[in-house]
Amino acid sequence: MKATFVSDDKVVITAAITGGIHGKETNPNIPITAEEQAGSALDCYNAGASVLHLHVRGDDGMNTPDLSYYSKSVRLIGEKCPMIRQIGNGIGARLDENWNVIHPTLQQRLALLDIDPRPEMHTINAGTFEFRTPLGGALFENPIAFNEDYIRGCNERGFPIEIEVYDLSHISNSLELIDKGLLKPPFHFSIVLGIMGGAAATPENLIHMVGVLPEGSSWQVVTVGKYHVRTVIMAMAMGGNVRTGMEDTVYYRKGEAAMSNAQLVERMVRIAREMGREPATVGEARLLMDIRS
Amino acid sequence: MKATFVSDDKVVITAAITGGIHGKETNPNIPITAEEQAGSALDCYNAGASVLHLHVRGDDGMNTPDLSYYSKSVRLIGEKCPMIRQIGNGIGARLDENWNVIHPTLQQRLALLDIDPRPEMHTINAGTFEFRTPLGGALFENPIAFNEDYIRGCNERGFPIEIEVYDLSHISNSLELIDKGLLKPPFHFSIVLGIMGGAAATPENLIHMVGVLPEGSSWQVVTVGKYHVRTVIMAMAMGGNVRTGMEDTVYYRKGEAAMSNAQLVERMVRIAREMGREPATVGEARLLMDIRS
Amino acid sequence: MKATFVSDDKVVITAAITGGIHGKETNPNIPITAEEQAGSALDCYNAGASVLHLHVRGDDGMNTPDLSYYSKSVRLIGEKCPMIRQIGNGIGARLDENWNVIHPTLQQRLALLDIDPRPEMHTINAGTFEFRTPLGGALFENPIAFNEDYIRGCNERGFPIEIEVYDLSHISNSLELIDKGLLKPPFHFSIVLGIMGGAAATPENLIHMVGVLPEGSSWQVVTVGKYHVRTVIMAMAMGGNVRTGMEDTVYYRKGEAAMSNAQLVERMVRIAREMGREPATVGEARLLMDIRS
Amino acid sequence: MKATFVSDDKVVITAAITGGIHGKETNPNIPITAEEQAGSALDCYNAGASVLHLHVRGDDGMNTPDLSYYSKSVRLIGEKCPMIRQIGNGIGARLDENWNVIHPTLQQRLALLDIDPRPEMHTINAGTFEFRTPLGGALFENPIAFNEDYIRGCNERGFPIEIEVYDLSHISNSLELIDKGLLKPPFHFSIVLGIMGGAAATPENLIHMVGVLPEGSSWQVVTVGKYHVRTVIMAMAMGGNVRTGMEDTVYYRKGEAAMSNAQLVERMVRIAREMGREPATVGEARLLMDIRS
Repeated sequence: MKATFVSDDKVVITAAITGGIHGKETNPNIPITAEEQAGSALDCYNAGASVLHLHVRGDDGMNTPDLSYYSKSVRLIGEKCPMIRQIGNGIGARLDENWNVIHPTLQQRLALLDIDPRPEMHTINAGTFEFRTPLGGALFENPIAFNEDYIRGCNERGFPIEIEVYDLSHISNSLELIDKGLLKPPFHFSIVLGIMGGAAATPENLIHMVGVLPEGSSWQVVTVGKYHVRTVIMAMAMGGNVRTGMEDTVYYRKGEAAMSNAQLVERMVRIAREMGREPATVGEARLLMDIRS
Repeated sequence: MKATFVSDDKVVITAAITGGIHGKETNPNIPITAEEQAGSALDCYNAGASVLHLHVRGDDGMNTPDLSYYSKSVRLIGEKCPMIRQIGNGIGARLDENWNVIHPTLQQRLALLDIDPRPEMHTINAGTFEFRTPLGGALFENPIAFNEDYIRGCNERGFPIEIEVYDLSHISNSLELIDKGLLKPPFHFSIVLGIMGGAAATPENLIHMVGVLPEGSSWQVVTVGKYHVRTVIMAMAMGGNVRTGMEDTVYYRKGEAAMSNAQLVERMVRIAREMGREPATVGEARLLMDIRS
Repeated sequence: MKATFVSDDKVVITAAITGGIHGKETNPNIPITAEEQAGSALDCYNAGASVLHLHVRGDDGMNTPDLSYYSKSVRLIGEKCPMIRQIGNGIGARLDENWNVIHPTLQQRLALLDIDPRPEMHTINAGTFEFRTPLGGALFENPIAFNEDYIRGCNERGFPIEIEVYDLSHISNSLELIDKGLLKPPFHFSIVLGIMGGAAATPENLIHMVGVLPEGSSWQVVTVGKYHVRTVIMAMAMGGNVRTGMEDTVYYRKGEAAMSNAQLVERMVRIAREMGREPATVGEARLLMDIRS
Repeated sequence: MKATFVSDDKVVITAAITGGIHGKETNPNIPITAEEQAGSALDCYNAGASVLHLHVRGDDGMNTPDLSYYSKSVRLIGEKCPMIRQIGNGIGARLDENWNVIHPTLQQRLALLDIDPRPEMHTINAGTFEFRTPLGGALFENPIAFNEDYIRGCNERGFPIEIEVYDLSHISNSLELIDKGLLKPPFHFSIVLGIMGGAAATPENLIHMVGVLPEGSSWQVVTVGKYHVRTVIMAMAMGGNVRTGMEDTVYYRKGEAAMSNAQLVERMVRIAREMGREPATVGEARLLMDIRS
């Protein structure tokens, strides 16, 4: 699809408040417990975010596939505000006592479909690759057979799906699943850029990848660290939605730790308004995402 | 050249305060007299702009090639603030009593090289095309022989040159003049988008045209009306400079007339800072533009 | 529109046998008289071309707007073969005794609409620019008001139109005329690259310009001299049609003069077949071009 | 880097004669034994190829990591002709009795560095992804730590390296290894398109990926099946090298089985010559590839 400078669409702001790997050692303001997450969610909601992208942590502060933690976070967030709760199906990695990266199993990830209470949305990752950080890397497994199972699970339960694509091949994989009728419109893509092991965060890559998306998709960009602010701003200027939060950057700007997720959301709201785009309300985002329940 | 999300460059903000065609009938806050221009320049300077792009108006409020008006504006602006005064060599069009568009002659345009007192910089337009507005259009003549004469005049007098390109062919024309040794580095390009008769204001066109610029160029985008804000923001996010002002848009936002040029500059300064780019001072811009006098 | 490696379309081959400027001094094999043109057309037809792009010459060998020459060429070609005769509405330039380039008037160009006998198709040039050659340049005037008149004339007479675009702005101009309902589908674009004063002949420009064309257009590339063969081959590989002939190149390859237009057509037929595309017959091309008479 | 229509470079033709997966059931003309491979190599050499990309097969016709088979093929090919023997380090997959895809281990792949007699060149695959075929898919493991080991092994032994990239992320991975000083210029890239699980074979993807390669790289495209001919032709037209052979397509054209690898090479030689590019001799290719031994 073509990007455009003249979109009249409201901008859907997603707050990715916790993330799958890094903890309070990188920024003590990251919400870790369900109570902290619910508080952060409310602040983001008040700041203008309408979607909450969720990873949860165990008592040790590391990521966990344990559904009881998901349940608690989903429940407490829902009690605070009406945000669209979106479950990132990668769950995130843990480190064992020898600092090896331990990923959840595909089975543990599939179990997310049955979080109770029910969230509003799930996220799939549309391809397998080596997800690296400066500290090390590990295979991020997303075989197409697994994604098909996950999507069927979403379809059966009525969950809309956010499709995270880290490279051109992931868009091709998605198009295969669209052709098979598994992924159904409206399509929501997150173009993830700047991860080591994924496509680089360059303006050329961003616009090229937008060009490959199916016509009529909604889309946002997910970028991390030093790329975050400008990449997201470019996406907003071209008609995309916004994702921000401490999953994506623990710095507010170079050398300055973020004080809260809401601070990051507030910045994007200010910039969106400077360019004539209002944040979508939760109701407007629900319509866009085709959330019926 | 490649665009980049990680430029550490300060952003040079150019205020195009008056423009070549439209007058107070479109917005009464457009500065027309030399005194108004000097006041507006000072406000823009205080707001963070370092370059002033200049067209002047006669006593009837319409554009004029009369050097006495240029002299007065250049002088009064210089008395108020140290901005880099940049002369747009198209001068602009007038309407005769029958509403026909009357362009200055190439000879009148060449005479701009001898404005006294001397400004700091000149702008060329790197190709001929039909410049249209909803009200009508007229040939904008920029034959390469004329541009060669103009550039030689700039070179002899030591004026750095801003190169305005409205399409891919204009970049090719510029590369021809670079190959001939007439245009010398550092190169400063303005990619003009969204003029009827020029390249369309789309994200794809912007990034494609940046890609065709010579490595190491500085660049900005010039867009008008409804395209203005988002196109300029995208350029800033990708490492470009900024041009704004009532030549480019008489609206602050849809349905809301701009109060002043400074108001438009202030918005761009706010956005630049949100993305971690400080406005260049005049001294910094002079270094970048290689202004020696 | 997207380019594609898997087009099943037959390839329409246009022979541009004579051209608007250069004469037998560049290659004695260029057909100049109506009789020579008819002979060349038949050879091109036999070689696999289905469209004949036509410029005619006066008794002095230079281009002429004189309709009697057009009539004779159109008639003689039609007597030899059933090719689609396509009139290039630029006519071409002459040199006066002082070697100044003399262009036909817009009025002379409009008169082409009434060539008798009637050809099958006309070509417009979708923008004004300085058309240059190593020997000099001159304004190639194609104001939008003239194009509107020409298109109306074609529409009244039932002529399908080939739209020649030398730059992005020309595509925008065409989209304006489509929006106004003047240009009607199916659209046929010629992307002209590598003319001095037009967009450069680079793979990046070609694919970018194809991307800006309206969905479902047929298209070909027109390139000259050293760019000709590879640019046309790339277009063919991506699903485009083909134009070749001594208007575009008087060399068969570097340092080797072309022996005939048919020789140039034969090469393109061979290459088309190597990549699994058969030349369209005249009947197939007539269907594609929506030629009803 | 930019693609160009005016490359004067000879075209290096690589014959990928056997491939890593499919066997004589898809086309009985695929060379399987070392003797067949040597005969096919000689024919390809005589046809104009200068590089031989090699996968070997065991007595069961399936791929094997057994070095004795590699030794025999490398030796017999070398006895027949002086082609540059290039070892694809993926080796290829086997099917077990239950039709499960069995990949070689990373250790088995590393052992290829010590094939005796010594070939001239090795190929790495610059990223991990799910390599799929209509029959099924499996993880193609190329973790960066493995690639670093492999590259060090090549560097110690003086092997030039062909870098196969199946997506944008693979180019980023390569740039990381260049930054680390492991991959050294001159760089030789194979852009692999159209594999299920990799980037799609579209003209837009091809040109975008070329644009991301380091300046001065040599490159070719590797595409399979229905994409093969046109994608390779486009690459040749834009200055790239050529790879063809029955690893990439077992059909000569739609519905017509290839008779031999040489037949595929001959077609590419014909097309190269049509566009004014001569096949590089082995000596010329050795210079380009910086093969010193």
